[in-house]
Amino acid sequence: MIELASTRSKYFIFELKSGQEFHTHRGIVKHDDLIGCDYGSKIESHKGSSFYLLQPGIAELNSTTKRNTQIMYPKDIGYIIMRLNILPGSQVIEAGTGSGGFTQVLASVVGSTGHVFSYEIREEMHNLAKKNISRLGLTDRVSFIGRNVREGFDERNVDAIFLDLPNPYDYISQVQEGLKSGGFFGSLLPTTNQVIKLLVALERYNFVFIDVCEISLRFFQAIANKFRPVDRMVAHTGYLIFARSVIEKKDEEAD
Amino acid sequence: MIELASTRSKYFIFELKSGQEFHTHRGIVKHDDLIGCDYGSKIESHKGSSFYLLQPGIAELNSTTKRNTQIMYPKDIGYIIMRLNILPGSQVIEAGTGSGGFTQVLASVVGSTGHVFSYEIREEMHNLAKKNISRLGLTDRVSFIGRNVREGFDERNVDAIFLDLPNPYDYISQVQEGLKSGGFFGSLLPTTNQVIKLLVALERYNFVFIDVCEISLRFFQAIANKFRPVDRMVAHTGYLIFARSVIEKKDEEAD
Amino acid sequence: MIELASTRSKYFIFELKSGQEFHTHRGIVKHDDLIGCDYGSKIESHKGSSFYLLQPGIAELNSTTKRNTQIMYPKDIGYIIMRLNILPGSQVIEAGTGSGGFTQVLASVVGSTGHVFSYEIREEMHNLAKKNISRLGLTDRVSFIGRNVREGFDERNVDAIFLDLPNPYDYISQVQEGLKSGGFFGSLLPTTNQVIKLLVALERYNFVFIDVCEISLRFFQAIANKFRPVDRMVAHTGYLIFARSVIEKKDEEAD
Amino acid sequence: MIELASTRSKYFIFELKSGQEFHTHRGIVKHDDLIGCDYGSKIESHKGSSFYLLQPGIAELNSTTKRNTQIMYPKDIGYIIMRLNILPGSQVIEAGTGSGGFTQVLASVVGSTGHVFSYEIREEMHNLAKKNISRLGLTDRVSFIGRNVREGFDERNVDAIFLDLPNPYDYISQVQEGLKSGGFFGSLLPTTNQVIKLLVALERYNFVFIDVCEISLRFFQAIANKFRPVDRMVAHTGYLIFARSVIEKKDEEAD
Repeated sequence: MIELASTRSKYFIFELKSGQEFHTHRGIVKHDDLIGCDYGSKIESHKGSSFYLLQPGIAELNSTTKRNTQIMYPKDIGYIIMRLNILPGSQVIEAGTGSGGFTQVLASVVGSTGHVFSYEIREEMHNLAKKNISRLGLTDRVSFIGRNVREGFDERNVDAIFLDLPNPYDYISQVQEGLKSGGFFGSLLPTTNQVIKLLVALERYNFVFIDVCEISLRFFQAIANKFRPVDRMVAHTGYLIFARSVIEKKDEEAD
Repeated sequence: MIELASTRSKYFIFELKSGQEFHTHRGIVKHDDLIGCDYGSKIESHKGSSFYLLQPGIAELNSTTKRNTQIMYPKDIGYIIMRLNILPGSQVIEAGTGSGGFTQVLASVVGSTGHVFSYEIREEMHNLAKKNISRLGLTDRVSFIGRNVREGFDERNVDAIFLDLPNPYDYISQVQEGLKSGGFFGSLLPTTNQVIKLLVALERYNFVFIDVCEISLRFFQAIANKFRPVDRMVAHTGYLIFARSVIEKKDEEAD
Repeated sequence: MIELASTRSKYFIFELKSGQEFHTHRGIVKHDDLIGCDYGSKIESHKGSSFYLLQPGIAELNSTTKRNTQIMYPKDIGYIIMRLNILPGSQVIEAGTGSGGFTQVLASVVGSTGHVFSYEIREEMHNLAKKNISRLGLTDRVSFIGRNVREGFDERNVDAIFLDLPNPYDYISQVQEGLKSGGFFGSLLPTTNQVIKLLVALERYNFVFIDVCEISLRFFQAIANKFRPVDRMVAHTGYLIFARSVIEKKDEEAD
Repeated sequence: MIELASTRSKYFIFELKSGQEFHTHRGIVKHDDLIGCDYGSKIESHKGSSFYLLQPGIAELNSTTKRNTQIMYPKDIGYIIMRLNILPGSQVIEAGTGSGGFTQVLASVVGSTGHVFSYEIREEMHNLAKKNISRLGLTDRVSFIGRNVREGFDERNVDAIFLDLPNPYDYISQVQEGLKSGGFFGSLLPTTNQVIKLLVALERYNFVFIDVCEISLRFFQAIANKFRPVDRMVAHTGYLIFARSVIEKKDEEAD
């Protein structure tokens, strides 16, 4: 998987295959001219336009990952990792897997001593995510479980649970069962109506430190003598909700 | 290091020491009542107010880390990790170390097979950062180098370099020497004047994919029947600048 | 009513009264030294600090108007005027009057040929607003009506109606009666829950072109060699809701 | 000039002419079916789709005004009016006229007792602006002056001056000559480089209360059970700069 970048900040991600050609409106580049080159090499198309061969970063891979589903953005992923306290050695549950973009980052961060349990009911999503994870050599760190979250999680006392589902408010008791006391819960939801329902559910199950926030990312025109924000931006991806589970709840349930 | 959290979303981070007391305006809590409790436990102060004993997360530790310097915020750190493509096994240079907040996250993410080289001229900052890193058990993953970046880096072909310095534009040739071809460069700067100078320097050294952006984080009032943004927010921490180094430059230097 | 501004961008608004003194931590200024000075004059306090005598602008008056109520901000007011199509000659209803900050702007813009009908149940607010309006010499352009909006408006076929009330969704039929066909409706609400209720009510009464938006205002440090956003900002004042009334509704009511 | 609005929040602004037809992909509407209808009336296309006949508001006219130039947005215009303290009776200079969108609002707000002096070197812009102003019946309130601002303004002691030009920093002495002491100055600039130059110029001419800000407008999906921000937004129109002129300067010039 390589990234071919033009000098005009446009980039293309594809796999190198001997004998093939890559066509852009700025000319043709032969895969054979790229194979064996160092990252950072400059290549010219048959029209004389300059391109650079680069290693694709997580952020770029993430935005070009093949997917049939709503993607999570790097601006949100990075912050979620911080807020869920994902560290080397962490045990984490996520649901749903989706195209596995977040799974890749979780698997990277938990390291060889941690583990990711990724739930998803759509088999085709799991197949796609598995391919993406295997490409990064992280297969050992992820268990893919094909099950509806309604039926609960197999794991107990995990460090963090993240629900990327349209109705996380229906599964808060399952979250509480899987999460260790004091563990970290997170979710991402596009509408205020969903957030409001989740707040009700989290309060009902005595979660504490409930926190809702929203991250905006604005790009600038990177020109030294005309430095200004670009004209348009993504206005919304989703609201992020975080909370901590506490023991108290379990006692009350015993009543 | 524990986190004592009141039910009103206020939290306090401190170390437990037998015989000591923790005083808040909602009453006194004895450390001995906390020692041995599970995370997530509910404790009452002598006035009957409820508190929870929690494990502090990276984000919270980060915002309470003792420091003599400008802090990097979780909203920025998470995104920088993504954009610099920091992964298990990555070799990363950062300068300066500051209080080591970002160092902690880098050391977590590079895992046991990666390494962080952290440059800083102020010895007292290195001492503070070493203490913070040791607290996380990540001492082996970080080399602290007490040197001015002007004199260059010892390392060659590292995967990423991040400069958290007021004048990164003065050190771009040093960055280019240390970074592998196609490697990832990043910086964070508070003023537009600094960004403009950095853009000039990056163009001069033929960096490509130069990207400037800004991340905003807005919190909401987490109350189900009064869901709305909070009244005030942090308006600015800094501009983030990213770029990739390419081989071409080195050829030109050879001329 | 004058504005005394220090060179450090701090300002004070007060009425000049012979014999009085104005005390700041940068020294004392005698009112008699200000009386008769031109706007723009520079005055020194007894400690030698510089101050400027200025005419207060609407925006500054607005933010220092004596009030017992939530204020509307200039960033919102200016845009509402545009979206409600307030012009010289416009007939406008507003409710509630509050401290009359918005009333002042409406009265200014409708000119001598337009009129503002301002409803409010709290008599003390009306008294305050009347004083503020009289100070601007615009008393003739505003009728203050002390009545609950639930009982409906006296006026028919007005050009625009703005509800600055916590429950505008309860008064949409009253709005429809007062507004001309095709007329402009607006409201400002702090919480998403209120907006959601208003959307339901507007749809029920067949309003069209329903539009919800939010305006953010970010200030910058106005220093040429350190140009950057200030550290903190107002994150939220309220959501703005706009809609147009159409005839169709009235036909349906006739059924 | 009418506005034909579909039920799907899409609108079209055009002049009614007997015998003509209006074609949309949702069917054809005959102008003769619209002529004589009340604003707010519902009309059906030949395909049975519903449309409403509405009076266009300033904000909508503004965004569809024929123009050959960068437009000023309602979000900025409304706030500028507030900050420049434009009121009935105000004497205001603006340069350049552009397509006259801001001129229209200024002329509306200054009322029959105020006046707008609008400078512009491109004759074709003045012709366009004159047509737009005449359409509103405000011709008497605006003087169009075809001259380069470098040569100075004819007027003295005006209440406010607004420069919508790429290089306002070159004309600050001209602004100071035209503006009354304590008067209001404003400008709108897209790049930080321009703002930085303007800050230098304003300081050099001893302007006080220099203020830079930026207004963001975010729209929401106006659906009661899916209330959320829309996906994309305008990220930047321009930075707004405000300042006050003071007498002191003139004294210094006398030295």
